[in-house]
Amino acid sequence: MIEITRDMLGRQGLTRVDAALETLLSRLGTVTPEVEIVSLSAALDRITARPIISPEDLPAHTRSTMDGFAVQAADTFGASESMPAYLRIIGDVTMGKQSSLVVERGCCVRIPTGGLLPTGTDAVVMLEHTVPIDELMVEVVKAVGVGMNLIAPGEDIGKGSPALPAGYCLRPQDIGLLAGLGMDRIEVYRGLRVGVLSTGDEIVPYTEVPPPGKVRDINGITLSGLIQRAGATANLYGIVSDRKEVFFPAVEKAVTENDIVLFSGGSSVGMRDLGEQAISSLGNPGILVHGVALKPGKPIIIGLTGTTPIFGLPGHPVSAMVCFELFVEPTIRHLSGFAVQEVLPQPVVLARLARNINSAPGRRDLIRVRLSRQDSGWVAEPVLGKSGAITTLSRAHGYFLIDEDSQGLTQDSEVKVTLYL
Amino acid sequence: MIEITRDMLGRQGLTRVDAALETLLSRLGTVTPEVEIVSLSAALDRITARPIISPEDLPAHTRSTMDGFAVQAADTFGASESMPAYLRIIGDVTMGKQSSLVVERGCCVRIPTGGLLPTGTDAVVMLEHTVPIDELMVEVVKAVGVGMNLIAPGEDIGKGSPALPAGYCLRPQDIGLLAGLGMDRIEVYRGLRVGVLSTGDEIVPYTEVPPPGKVRDINGITLSGLIQRAGATANLYGIVSDRKEVFFPAVEKAVTENDIVLFSGGSSVGMRDLGEQAISSLGNPGILVHGVALKPGKPIIIGLTGTTPIFGLPGHPVSAMVCFELFVEPTIRHLSGFAVQEVLPQPVVLARLARNINSAPGRRDLIRVRLSRQDSGWVAEPVLGKSGAITTLSRAHGYFLIDEDSQGLTQDSEVKVTLYL
Repeated sequence: MIEITRDMLGRQGLTRVDAALETLLSRLGTVTPEVEIVSLSAALDRITARPIISPEDLPAHTRSTMDGFAVQAADTFGASESMPAYLRIIGDVTMGKQSSLVVERGCCVRIPTGGLLPTGTDAVVMLEHTVPIDELMVEVVKAVGVGMNLIAPGEDIGKGSPALPAGYCLRPQDIGLLAGLGMDRIEVYRGLRVGVLSTGDEIVPYTEVPPPGKVRDINGITLSGLIQRAGATANLYGIVSDRKEVFFPAVEKAVTENDIVLFSGGSSVGMRDLGEQAISSLGNPGILVHGVALKPGKPIIIGLTGTTPIFGLPGHPVSAMVCFELFVEPTIRHLSGFAVQEVLPQPVVLARLARNINSAPGRRDLIRVRLSRQDSGWVAEPVLGKSGAITTLSRAHGYFLIDEDSQGLTQDSEVKVTLYL
Repeated sequence: MIEITRDMLGRQGLTRVDAALETLLSRLGTVTPEVEIVSLSAALDRITARPIISPEDLPAHTRSTMDGFAVQAADTFGASESMPAYLRIIGDVTMGKQSSLVVERGCCVRIPTGGLLPTGTDAVVMLEHTVPIDELMVEVVKAVGVGMNLIAPGEDIGKGSPALPAGYCLRPQDIGLLAGLGMDRIEVYRGLRVGVLSTGDEIVPYTEVPPPGKVRDINGITLSGLIQRAGATANLYGIVSDRKEVFFPAVEKAVTENDIVLFSGGSSVGMRDLGEQAISSLGNPGILVHGVALKPGKPIIIGLTGTTPIFGLPGHPVSAMVCFELFVEPTIRHLSGFAVQEVLPQPVVLARLARNINSAPGRRDLIRVRLSRQDSGWVAEPVLGKSGAITTLSRAHGYFLIDEDSQGLTQDSEVKVTLYL
């Protein structure tokens, strides 16, 4: 059951932000993209399609974890500063080679970190716990137990053990782990394609000089950057006329060629109707949400045809960007195969609010802020500006949210700012 | 003057982390890369080389910021719910067109958000403050002043005004602003090239099965990913023998082909000497730092030849990664032309520490943690593991730092976790 609110004139049912997103995601269920195999060098930032299982024991052989001497632990028992054990040095372990030395009682071998333990040894004494006598003799001033300062075969990871889960976004260090396991063919989900149509009678390509009354298309390229940052590929369809015979086929084409379709522009009632009609014409389930209790971003339309979400975003660039962050980005994550259990907290900057901010109950407000450093910490100054002012787009360092049950925040309140990175 | 500390055996002077970085960056001064011109569609995440000045007034003409009626403000003076003003509707402003209507006293025109104000009007009454009578007449129930609900020419940004500063990394919304200004040739700094050499007798390419005693090269591909994430291009030189006659020319070649050079591996004393000799052989100033009071990451070597920093990173992948984050990444930012005044706070996740952590005074510790959600909030569990255990590489969600003046933290302390994204 969707919770509906009304705007201040009671003119229209508005859906709450959380409910609007949930309405869409719950219908999408657990759709995942096709699986493809990429080489490890192309796997950064891709999402694993299967759990990755270690194909071998790591390490394969017992290795030292310290610089020191490989010994028989029993030879060091009871050793202390006041009563050291004396061991005869019979040679050195060379990095990268299996030593042919066999170490007997009373003997030891110099070993570097990472060196393979020679036959007969079962522990390593750290260099710091030894005192050199001469080239052939060393004092051990601290006892070691069997297995100390070494790593046993399979102790890091055993053959057949899980290395990484499915639905996991591969960071540089995860790529490093997979390199250590010798894996060069990684099953990942195909990247998502997001189609973007810019609509509206009043927009021209940003490369043109707009005649009076017209403005340049800002949303196409801004949404393209946001899509890229979200890990998907943007397909720009340019400016599409809002005449039905042009707009409908363009949306239909974009739906066949993409996993998600965005059209932006047309906050006018006529364009809004056209957007809703286009979504409805493409088949079930059609329109899911029209209008959310959100500022800015109220006029968003969310629809679904088959398994392809279609978002009608407001024409105003700031509103379009807010709707992208709150609705489209989570949808990209959902459809990309990213596993929910791996969702981490959003890192934030704590800051004090520079002024009072009012908010209507029942509505979620996204307040963009500029941060400045003061002695007492970071201060968040709301970025305000007239609707249509495009310079406000880039003035903000980040934003915070005011929830539906709040009527606003007073100056000096602590806010959690999500940075635009 | 560099502050030096000693390790627990007093064997060696170690440089503090901040001093080590400052030693390098202060010598680099304000070097910036060459400038190149890119189209706007290729400018995302690039750094501006010059302040960007608006080439025109925005908006070019007076536009409405609301849906409503364009009026002469004087016609609404004194209007209220109990005593509305009645205005005659003489037509509509169409989006994207300059209206030919001339509005006289007592008249008004329907106007959408973004519409151009017709001749004779000087304010807009919001739709919400009107009551329709019929197609030709409207009641205005709230007065507006001259200039209300409209945006005047140049009010968003004036021709010749600064739009964005130099040394600024372009986000999607900044690209949007530049699209709005019609700018398609952007002066940005050339991206940095970072050369990576993997060294060490014991490593083989990750695509091979290592014979006993050898391990796969993890650092090459991990550093490549970290470099990519830092906005630079990685040039991988593969595994380079640590024989002087091979290693020296390889480092020299990398220096001529890159802005920064990293070699990793060789925590052994012999390899370390070789690395220092190679850096010294390339000319002044040579070695700046060898060994920092940092765990993990102590054995790092930092050198400089001309204006090219050379980092000798520890061979252990976790240590190499930590050194990258604390030294190489800030150096990439410094050399990329990124302006210091634009540095924002690092966003963090606040978490409670799951156990006591000791730290040696005089040393900075980087503690990697795994986060889990509990009722009381996020809990940070330190990721520990034997030196050489590669699975610890990917287990951490992020890290926090323990500064030189701390001896550790107790369980349940609040820590500020920087996420690995």
